[in-house]
Amino acid sequence: MLVGKQSWQFTNQPVIISTGVIGGPFEKQGAMADYFDQFGKDIWFNQPSFEQAQKQLFEEACHIAFAKSKLQKEDMSFVFAGDLLNQITSTSFAMRALQIPYFGLFGACSTSMEGLAMAAFISNYKGANYVLTGATSHNAAIEKTFRYPTEYGSQKPPTAQWTVTASGVAIVSQQGEGPIISSATIGKVLDEGIEDPYNMGAAMAPAAVDTILAHLRDLNKRMEDYDLIVTGDLGEIGHAIAKELLEKAGHNVQEGIFIDAGMNMYKSDQAVQAGASGAGCSAAYTYGRVVKKLQEGLYNNVLIVATGALLSPLTFQQHETIPAIAHAVALKGGKS
Amino acid sequence: MLVGKQSWQFTNQPVIISTGVIGGPFEKQGAMADYFDQFGKDIWFNQPSFEQAQKQLFEEACHIAFAKSKLQKEDMSFVFAGDLLNQITSTSFAMRALQIPYFGLFGACSTSMEGLAMAAFISNYKGANYVLTGATSHNAAIEKTFRYPTEYGSQKPPTAQWTVTASGVAIVSQQGEGPIISSATIGKVLDEGIEDPYNMGAAMAPAAVDTILAHLRDLNKRMEDYDLIVTGDLGEIGHAIAKELLEKAGHNVQEGIFIDAGMNMYKSDQAVQAGASGAGCSAAYTYGRVVKKLQEGLYNNVLIVATGALLSPLTFQQHETIPAIAHAVALKGGKS
Repeated sequence: MLVGKQSWQFTNQPVIISTGVIGGPFEKQGAMADYFDQFGKDIWFNQPSFEQAQKQLFEEACHIAFAKSKLQKEDMSFVFAGDLLNQITSTSFAMRALQIPYFGLFGACSTSMEGLAMAAFISNYKGANYVLTGATSHNAAIEKTFRYPTEYGSQKPPTAQWTVTASGVAIVSQQGEGPIISSATIGKVLDEGIEDPYNMGAAMAPAAVDTILAHLRDLNKRMEDYDLIVTGDLGEIGHAIAKELLEKAGHNVQEGIFIDAGMNMYKSDQAVQAGASGAGCSAAYTYGRVVKKLQEGLYNNVLIVATGALLSPLTFQQHETIPAIAHAVALKGGKS
Repeated sequence: MLVGKQSWQFTNQPVIISTGVIGGPFEKQGAMADYFDQFGKDIWFNQPSFEQAQKQLFEEACHIAFAKSKLQKEDMSFVFAGDLLNQITSTSFAMRALQIPYFGLFGACSTSMEGLAMAAFISNYKGANYVLTGATSHNAAIEKTFRYPTEYGSQKPPTAQWTVTASGVAIVSQQGEGPIISSATIGKVLDEGIEDPYNMGAAMAPAAVDTILAHLRDLNKRMEDYDLIVTGDLGEIGHAIAKELLEKAGHNVQEGIFIDAGMNMYKSDQAVQAGASGAGCSAAYTYGRVVKKLQEGLYNNVLIVATGALLSPLTFQQHETIPAIAHAVALKGGKS
């Protein structure tokens, strides 16, 4: 049901009944390691190319989610998923083996919540038995696509972020146990004129804030109604900008409650400049730590705000600025 | 509501209340010219690059659909749209100006029906006031992305298809006048081992047939229940394969009723080898000719089966085969 201008409320309480989160060796050393289900022994995932490794990440995350829920891929009605590669080939190529009716999404690093919003809407109205949704990124495949092959070892400015090697997926259903998806707010594209692909956080921060404000307005809520508001991958620079913009809009922004997945993925001794990024960042954080902590009762109301920078290597070469978007999904402590 | 394994039935009768179809000069000479709303005077659409021309195509198609329906962009709740460029930048960049909450889709040339299925589902359950959906392709931008810049004048084999320069969009609503969206079937990814990006029709034909068979099974229908079944852009080669596969599956396939948008877009004296293709092909054909003929009463039941080849330039370089998908949406003679 449409609420306000750009939000949905899910009155039939669709549930995240299972998750699968997989990472690489660098994520295994990271701050969120305890919340991953599995790690690759290296960044190749037994594949001959980084693009195929990214496909493998997604496929394995799906199989983890199937196994944990004791469901088969044949039980899934639909998949809503995507990645950052040109023509989202990792996700589409994984669907050759998965054989589930498939909606390909492109929302850059906002894909995780674009997919979860769709999965929740479909599930809320009995449009599916089970819906699988997720997002994936592989450091070497994505850095090569958007910046330089990592083998070049090129230097990065302090505003740069580290693309996460991770896939996070969830199975959504109208019945079952798990965190409830209570509402979603779909974002508009904002472009504040940032051109630097090493400063995605600054490009995405205004979109994150616009979606948070729209969410609070549409659902008639305050920031204080949430135990935790997690942006996707703004990093340190973007987080500071978002905090300032929210405060300017009159909101009381509490550190520790308004956090960024990209700032929390790695440990302080891991050289990731301004933090983590990538389509797998918010997906892994949400389907890893957030879902676990909602199940354990540490949180009762969480808002995930996945942010995406909608540039391409070509638009950068053509000196275009970077449009950004953010989608928010609210999760509530579990149905059991 | 889920029907069968992979289909939705829309019992609240969402309606296509407005459309916008725009093409280039080559489409103006084509067989479907009467069903376009507007044409560019050249392929630049007053833009400095082909990619920006593609963005412009989509933006102008939207404005045509707004004007015809006497609605404003502010009236739209959501957009579901995409294109074929890396990171679907044309569509996302158009959203900077349109400022409508936005779901980016990537389904290659199946995007048109991926978006229409979503728009119908959302509208059917009051998830939006109005939903805009569409798909776009620009010959020079897409040929440059997937094959060679058109300025090279490189030769093409007879199996090749001509990427349409067109954008087709529709506004979907739960109320109003126009063709009713009655059901949709979402396809799986099929890969029959075709490697040649100049033979997309052969790669996509099995996916089209798989989705048609799933649709007939899920909805308990026969091909004869439709006045017209239009595949997206199989071209001559793919159409012949699809016809044979359907006949092998025991269906009575009538020429003139089972047709392909890609084979009908241009006149016989236009040198397009096996036919037309591109994300704009099925979109322009559906929102141009099919919607008009449903309104006029020539057809009462039409099934659109948009087909997509999910490759990228990189997967071709890496010698991957071409996975394909098809999504079907059924339209009924208008509500008025």
